[in-house]
Amino acid sequence: MCDLVYLQVTALCVYPELMKSPDFPEDTKEHARTILGGKCCGGGSLGAYSESVGVEVIRRHVAKYIEDRDGGIKCDYNNVILSGGASEAIKSVMELLNRPVDGKPVGVMVPIPQYPLYSATVAEFGMHQINYYLDEPRAWALDIPELARALEESRSTCIPRLLVVINPGNPTGSVLTRQNIEDIIKFAFENRLIIMADEVYQHNVYAADREFHSFKKVISEMGEPYNTMEMASFMSCSKGYMGECGLRGGYCELLNFDPKVKAMLFKMISAKLCSTVHGQAVMDCVVNPPKPGDPSYELYSQERDAVLSSLKERAALIAETFNSMEGFKCNQVQGAMYAFPQLELPEKAIEAAKAAGQAPDVFYAFQLLENTGICVVPGSGFGQRPGTYHFRTTILPQTPLLKEMLARMQEFHQTFIKKYQ
Amino acid sequence: MCDLVYLQVTALCVYPELMKSPDFPEDTKEHARTILGGKCCGGGSLGAYSESVGVEVIRRHVAKYIEDRDGGIKCDYNNVILSGGASEAIKSVMELLNRPVDGKPVGVMVPIPQYPLYSATVAEFGMHQINYYLDEPRAWALDIPELARALEESRSTCIPRLLVVINPGNPTGSVLTRQNIEDIIKFAFENRLIIMADEVYQHNVYAADREFHSFKKVISEMGEPYNTMEMASFMSCSKGYMGECGLRGGYCELLNFDPKVKAMLFKMISAKLCSTVHGQAVMDCVVNPPKPGDPSYELYSQERDAVLSSLKERAALIAETFNSMEGFKCNQVQGAMYAFPQLELPEKAIEAAKAAGQAPDVFYAFQLLENTGICVVPGSGFGQRPGTYHFRTTILPQTPLLKEMLARMQEFHQTFIKKYQ
Repeated sequence: MCDLVYLQVTALCVYPELMKSPDFPEDTKEHARTILGGKCCGGGSLGAYSESVGVEVIRRHVAKYIEDRDGGIKCDYNNVILSGGASEAIKSVMELLNRPVDGKPVGVMVPIPQYPLYSATVAEFGMHQINYYLDEPRAWALDIPELARALEESRSTCIPRLLVVINPGNPTGSVLTRQNIEDIIKFAFENRLIIMADEVYQHNVYAADREFHSFKKVISEMGEPYNTMEMASFMSCSKGYMGECGLRGGYCELLNFDPKVKAMLFKMISAKLCSTVHGQAVMDCVVNPPKPGDPSYELYSQERDAVLSSLKERAALIAETFNSMEGFKCNQVQGAMYAFPQLELPEKAIEAAKAAGQAPDVFYAFQLLENTGICVVPGSGFGQRPGTYHFRTTILPQTPLLKEMLARMQEFHQTFIKKYQ
Repeated sequence: MCDLVYLQVTALCVYPELMKSPDFPEDTKEHARTILGGKCCGGGSLGAYSESVGVEVIRRHVAKYIEDRDGGIKCDYNNVILSGGASEAIKSVMELLNRPVDGKPVGVMVPIPQYPLYSATVAEFGMHQINYYLDEPRAWALDIPELARALEESRSTCIPRLLVVINPGNPTGSVLTRQNIEDIIKFAFENRLIIMADEVYQHNVYAADREFHSFKKVISEMGEPYNTMEMASFMSCSKGYMGECGLRGGYCELLNFDPKVKAMLFKMISAKLCSTVHGQAVMDCVVNPPKPGDPSYELYSQERDAVLSSLKERAALIAETFNSMEGFKCNQVQGAMYAFPQLELPEKAIEAAKAAGQAPDVFYAFQLLENTGICVVPGSGFGQRPGTYHFRTTILPQTPLLKEMLARMQEFHQTFIKKYQ
C-alpha cells in the first residue's frame, strides 16, 4: 500500500546514521528528528523504553490529528494512549472495565457479524457477550430497536456496560450515517453504556452518499448531556491507505473517563513497560503526514490517492460481481476492506456439511479453498443470523487479481451448486 | 549499547530500498533478505501481519540459538513463540496457566525481591502470590528450605502451580549456580510446579566464578524424570549487550507442554494477530549475529565485547563503592544490570517517613531524588524482608557518570544520616 514516505521516516528513526544520506528528502529527516527528539523518546532512539502510554510528542500529534479530523473539537493528548495495534488498546480497555457486580458478569454488546477480537476477548475475560444483529437488508444498518431487544434480553444474566460499534464495519463494509450514530449515542446514554468505537477504517469510505463521522465528533456536537459520556475510540496504522499491520501501531482516545479510572488503566499498561516505539513512530507518520509544500507531499498524496481510489474501484467491483452471480446477495461495500456476501446453499450441501462435521459455510469455504486455492473466512467466524450463510472476502487484491478471483469463485460456485442440487 | 549491525539489518528490513546503498555491508543485506524472505513475512515486508506466534525463519533461528547455547540439546522451533518483549510472553503464559480449582486461586511462587511484572500480573489475573525470600547474606541464593516453607504455608489458600525464577536476578544481580538450579528443578518436580525461567539477562554474567546455565539445559541433562517437566523460558532483546528495549522483541520456549495446552496459548495469542514484526526482526539479529569472517563480524564483536566488559567493570565498581559507604551493604553484582544494596536507616528517619505517610525506603528515595536528582527504585517496589531497607539502582550509566552518581549518593547519605541521627 502507500508507504514510501513513512518507511523513509521510520528507517531514519531506526538508523539515524541515514540522516547523512542525500537520498532522503529534508522533510522526512525533520520528521524523524521530531520523533527522536520527542520527550520520552529516550536517548534519541527508538531503542529505549518510552513512557508506557507512548512518546509525548506522538500523543500530541495524534491529538492534533483528531482535532483536525473533527473540525477543531478539542482533544487533550493526555486522553491518548499509544498501543501495539488497536487490538492491544481494545483488550486493555475491555479488561479495565471488566468489573463484575455481585458475581454477575459484565455485558458487552457486540454486533453480529462482528470482528472476532471482541468475542475472543469477551471469552478471555469471562465477560458476557450480548449479540445485536445488524440489519442486512438495510445495508447492515444498526437498528435501535434491535439494540433494545438484545439489551433487555440480557439483563437477567449480566451487567450491561459496553457497546461495541465498528464503523466503518468489519466484516460488513457498512458506514453508519450521522443520524444512526446520534441514535446509538442516545441509546447508550439512556442505558448507561460506554461506547467502544472501533474506527480503524476511518480513512476507508468509498460510497458517494457516505462519509466518516467519528463518535467523538457527534457526541461533542450533540452537546449536553451526551458530551459528558464516557467513550473510547480506537485507530490503527494497519488499515486506511497505510496497511502497515505488522508494525503494530495504534492509539486509543478516552473521553470523559474518571481520572482515577484512567490512572488504573495507565498503571495496568505500565506492567508491560511500553508498546513498540517503532510502531509509535509509524503512527506518528499516519497522523502527521507531509503537508502541501513539503518535499515529500507529492509522493505521499499520490500514493494515498492511488491506493484509496483503487480500493474504491474494487469495492464497487466486488459487490457488483457478487450480485451478478446466481445465489449471491451482497450489500454495497461502503467502506472498510471487506465484502460479506450472503449465499444460498442447497439442502444437499447442508447435509453434506453435516456429514463432514462442519458448519455449512465452513464446508463451503473449505471446498472453495481446496478447489480454487481461494481463502475466504466463513460467516460463522463473525456470526450471522441462524440459517443464513456468508463469507468474508477482502478487496485487497489488486484489480486484475480480484477479477480473476471472482471469476474462479463464480465457476466454483456453479459447479458446487450443480453437485448438490 | 551495542547496536550498529542490527540497526543496519532492521533499517534494511524497514526500507528495502536501502539494499541499493553501498553503505551497508553485504552480510547485513543478506540477513535482511533472509528475514524478509522468510515464510510468513508477508510480501517481503515487516508491514504485513506475521503468523501469530512469529515469523517461521526467525523462530528457527531462535531454536538454533538455544541449541548452540545449550551445547546442542535439541530445540524444536514449534516450541518457540515470538512476543513483544519478554513481558508479553510472560503474561500470556501466566494467563494460560491460570485455571483456579474449586474457587481456589492458582498460586505463583515469586522471589522476594522480585521484578514487579510478576506481582502486577498475579494481581491482574486474580492469582495468589506465594513469596519466597532470597537469602541476602548468601549472595541472594535461592534456598530450597525457604521454597518449601513458602509452599507449605500457601497450600490452604491456593493451588500452587507456578515457580518463577529470575536468573540472572533482577533486582538482585545474583547468578544461580548449577547445583542450585538442579535443586530447584527437583523441588519443582516433587511439588508439580511449572518453572517460569526468566532468563532475559543470560548474556549478563560478570562474576568470575559464575556462568549462565539455562534451566532447559540443566533439566535436559538431569535426564528422566526431570526432562519431561513442563517449563517456560523467556528471553528479550532489551537486555544483554543489545538493550533495545523500545523495540519490543522477545521469545518464549515452551518445554513439554501438552499440544492441546500449547494450541490454546497459540489461539489466545492470535486474537491480537501478531507481535511487532520489527521487534521480531531485532530478535533475529540477537540470536543470529554476524559470524567470524562476515564483513560485520569485527564491528559486532567489538561493540558486544566493549559493552559487556564495561558493564562488568561497572558491576564491580558499584558493589565496591556501596560497601565502602557507611550504612550500606551490597552483594556482589554477579550478573544482570542492578545493584540492590541494603541500607541502615536511623530510627528518626523511619519516624519522619511515617509522618510523611511514606514507607521508609520510599521516603529515602524521594529525599535522594529531590536533593541530588538521582532516581532509584525503593526496595518495597520489589519486596524485601520486613524491617530491612533497600533500593535498586542500575549499572547502566557510563563509568564516569556512575562514579559521579555514587559520589553524590555518598554525600547525600551522610547528610541524611546526620540529619536524622
